[in-house]
Amino acid sequence: MSGLLTDLYELTMAAGYAAAGRLDDRAVFEFSIRRLPRNRGYVVVAGIEQAAAYLENLCFSAEEIAWLRKLPQFARAPEVYFDWLRDFRFRGDVDAVQEGTVLFAGEPVLTVRAALGEAQIPETALLATVTFQTLVATKAARLVDAAAGRAVVEFGTRRAHTPDAGVLGARAAYIGGCFGTSNALAGYRFRLPVFGTAAHSWMLAFPSEGDAFHALQNLLGPHTVQLVDTYDTLEGVRLAASLGRPLWGIRLDSGDFAELAVAARRILDEAGLKDVRIMVSGDLDEWKIRDLVLAGAPVDSFGVGTELATSGDAPSMGSIYKLVEIESGGRRRPTAKSSQEKKSLPGAKQIFRFPDHDVIGLAEEPCPKGAAPLLHPLLRDGRRVAHPPPLDIVRMACREGVAKLPAPYRAFDQAAVYPVQHSPALQRLTDETLRRRQ
Amino acid sequence: MSGLLTDLYELTMAAGYAAAGRLDDRAVFEFSIRRLPRNRGYVVVAGIEQAAAYLENLCFSAEEIAWLRKLPQFARAPEVYFDWLRDFRFRGDVDAVQEGTVLFAGEPVLTVRAALGEAQIPETALLATVTFQTLVATKAARLVDAAAGRAVVEFGTRRAHTPDAGVLGARAAYIGGCFGTSNALAGYRFRLPVFGTAAHSWMLAFPSEGDAFHALQNLLGPHTVQLVDTYDTLEGVRLAASLGRPLWGIRLDSGDFAELAVAARRILDEAGLKDVRIMVSGDLDEWKIRDLVLAGAPVDSFGVGTELATSGDAPSMGSIYKLVEIESGGRRRPTAKSSQEKKSLPGAKQIFRFPDHDVIGLAEEPCPKGAAPLLHPLLRDGRRVAHPPPLDIVRMACREGVAKLPAPYRAFDQAAVYPVQHSPALQRLTDETLRRRQ
Repeated sequence: MSGLLTDLYELTMAAGYAAAGRLDDRAVFEFSIRRLPRNRGYVVVAGIEQAAAYLENLCFSAEEIAWLRKLPQFARAPEVYFDWLRDFRFRGDVDAVQEGTVLFAGEPVLTVRAALGEAQIPETALLATVTFQTLVATKAARLVDAAAGRAVVEFGTRRAHTPDAGVLGARAAYIGGCFGTSNALAGYRFRLPVFGTAAHSWMLAFPSEGDAFHALQNLLGPHTVQLVDTYDTLEGVRLAASLGRPLWGIRLDSGDFAELAVAARRILDEAGLKDVRIMVSGDLDEWKIRDLVLAGAPVDSFGVGTELATSGDAPSMGSIYKLVEIESGGRRRPTAKSSQEKKSLPGAKQIFRFPDHDVIGLAEEPCPKGAAPLLHPLLRDGRRVAHPPPLDIVRMACREGVAKLPAPYRAFDQAAVYPVQHSPALQRLTDETLRRRQ
Repeated sequence: MSGLLTDLYELTMAAGYAAAGRLDDRAVFEFSIRRLPRNRGYVVVAGIEQAAAYLENLCFSAEEIAWLRKLPQFARAPEVYFDWLRDFRFRGDVDAVQEGTVLFAGEPVLTVRAALGEAQIPETALLATVTFQTLVATKAARLVDAAAGRAVVEFGTRRAHTPDAGVLGARAAYIGGCFGTSNALAGYRFRLPVFGTAAHSWMLAFPSEGDAFHALQNLLGPHTVQLVDTYDTLEGVRLAASLGRPLWGIRLDSGDFAELAVAARRILDEAGLKDVRIMVSGDLDEWKIRDLVLAGAPVDSFGVGTELATSGDAPSMGSIYKLVEIESGGRRRPTAKSSQEKKSLPGAKQIFRFPDHDVIGLAEEPCPKGAAPLLHPLLRDGRRVAHPPPLDIVRMACREGVAKLPAPYRAFDQAAVYPVQHSPALQRLTDETLRRRQ
């Protein structure tokens, strides 16, 4: 992957470290989530696999280096810098939480220990990769929570920020608990369950709705889902019911779902199609799904697109990648920002998870009794040290992690703040580091 | 590009068309924006180039076809379908508006005329590609409007939904009027101006702020921008001022920008650095930029990340890709959805732009006097028919298009609805098509 896929300042800083003879200073950078998005009491981490693949494949082509050389920002960069770019490989160590892990504000997601230049350049791509998938996995967890046992299928590629984001979003949504996706490439690449039958254009391509329904049944047999709202929704349901089996279900894609689902259920039941399902799609979010479930609407599964693929109510999140320790000339020094709004905590850290709270401590602290550490080795010397668990396992672990959270932390609005403490050792280091600056 | 990068239902529908012997029916699909996002009076179209490249390169690998074959949805698909996938190439005709064009709700962005199967499969990727870039170009146009002549630089890759979305977002932001981007790969690939100097980690990597500032000056000379808010912001400004030239500017990244900019300006001026610029970044949007400009804050340029890269206040948009005409067995038939909430207009269309309003007519209508047609040939028989204009030209055309709009349509909140009429011929066809359905 192109080393240029980063902010230019990562590359100018690396040139500056080259000029200062400091490219090989040992640095520790920490990826953490400074603030949770609005309405979020937790996040579900995803994208760690793509982050690892990125780090393993990062390099610069000769043509890319030639382009950089001509930029005015690099007019004074030393020759050793361009040599370094030519031979660039990420050779550092990375610890990370497992995908599907539930995390809270301020907690480290990933720690990079590497030569200063090698650790600096990946900042931008690591942030974009992990933040986006984490947003979608988190949104999926909320939707699945709202659906209270009914299936939620990811339908959002067309609304994703590029088609490729749709593929990775489908993966993240699966981690967060979705039942599957409409994205065929995500299904192929990540072996996810894929779903999809027909769109309105299918209905319009036939002279009548009956012709369209009939053709779909011939094609899909027991997998048939009839989309009933192209013309008149309840007429569509009656038509689907009159054609009878094979029929997996019907899909409502517009209108008042609570009313239509009740009416559709009655029509299907009266036709002896009690096991035929009702799927609902169209501008759904966790609030609407919860309301439908609470109203007792006879809906069997939900297809969610826009809101899931873009994490619509919270399309971004304050994730950061900060230098927390540097070793230069044999001297190790923890670092922290002390500006009023954006304080950061120094040192390489570990999360110790207790049953009812988390403690952020220093990486070198022993794990306290009754707690489990959440950051595990991901890369050593730039290479994967562990095979990732299958996504089904990741997804199940995520569901368990979310289900364990007491309801106030899972609230869709104004979620309670989960108790996250700092260990005495971390607190001491923070005080010392900031005092040193004053 | 993988043909699987689509919703599965596009592929099941194509299988159904194969089963019905209708893959080669001639179809016309239309990409349009049903509703503008909240707070938007117009959009700026971008992403057409990526849409064209996608269509030119679309295909299915043998392994992908083998995977599809095993899905239960394709158990009854005819063999001719898999042969068709193997030989798949998009061979249709596409008309589209030029990138940088200002459009309004209901207007067609792109029209696809192709064999039914070939036109169906690209739906998902076309929507994701053009909608995302259009959202970002539109947001950029608003930010640039707010900045009233000051430069706006795109800084958002780390917040983009995947790093690759950051590259395309940078391109779209440039089309919308941004001065450049921090994304190095976007600069390399699309020859955009790139900017970037140093982050907080640079400041923390040196024993003191003075050492960090000094090292940056040595590296960047007249391109130096000192980031002054790592510790105490105004102390940082004084330090930068005391080091003097070479110095392009300082960057404020947190705090009360209106106050800090005034104080920083005074410090710089008193040090005889009247030409040294003040750049502001950190959680900016069009409202905050407007307020700073109206307050007379001495800010020379703005760096915008999160809100731009994600179109934060409107991360999605109701764009649609609908079948508007089908020719089957020698009979041409316009099509439209008549469901209550989601009506669509039949027939292949053209936009006729008059100086103070638009008329949507049928593609076959002659262009009325005093108007210019906005949809132009993009692909013929699946191949590009025109080279795209350079992005600088696209960007300038966009600035002119936006500047021409009266202020009420450019309002950041509750923008007025631009007058878009339907030609009598389109109105007649719509009435006839819907009547035929009743």
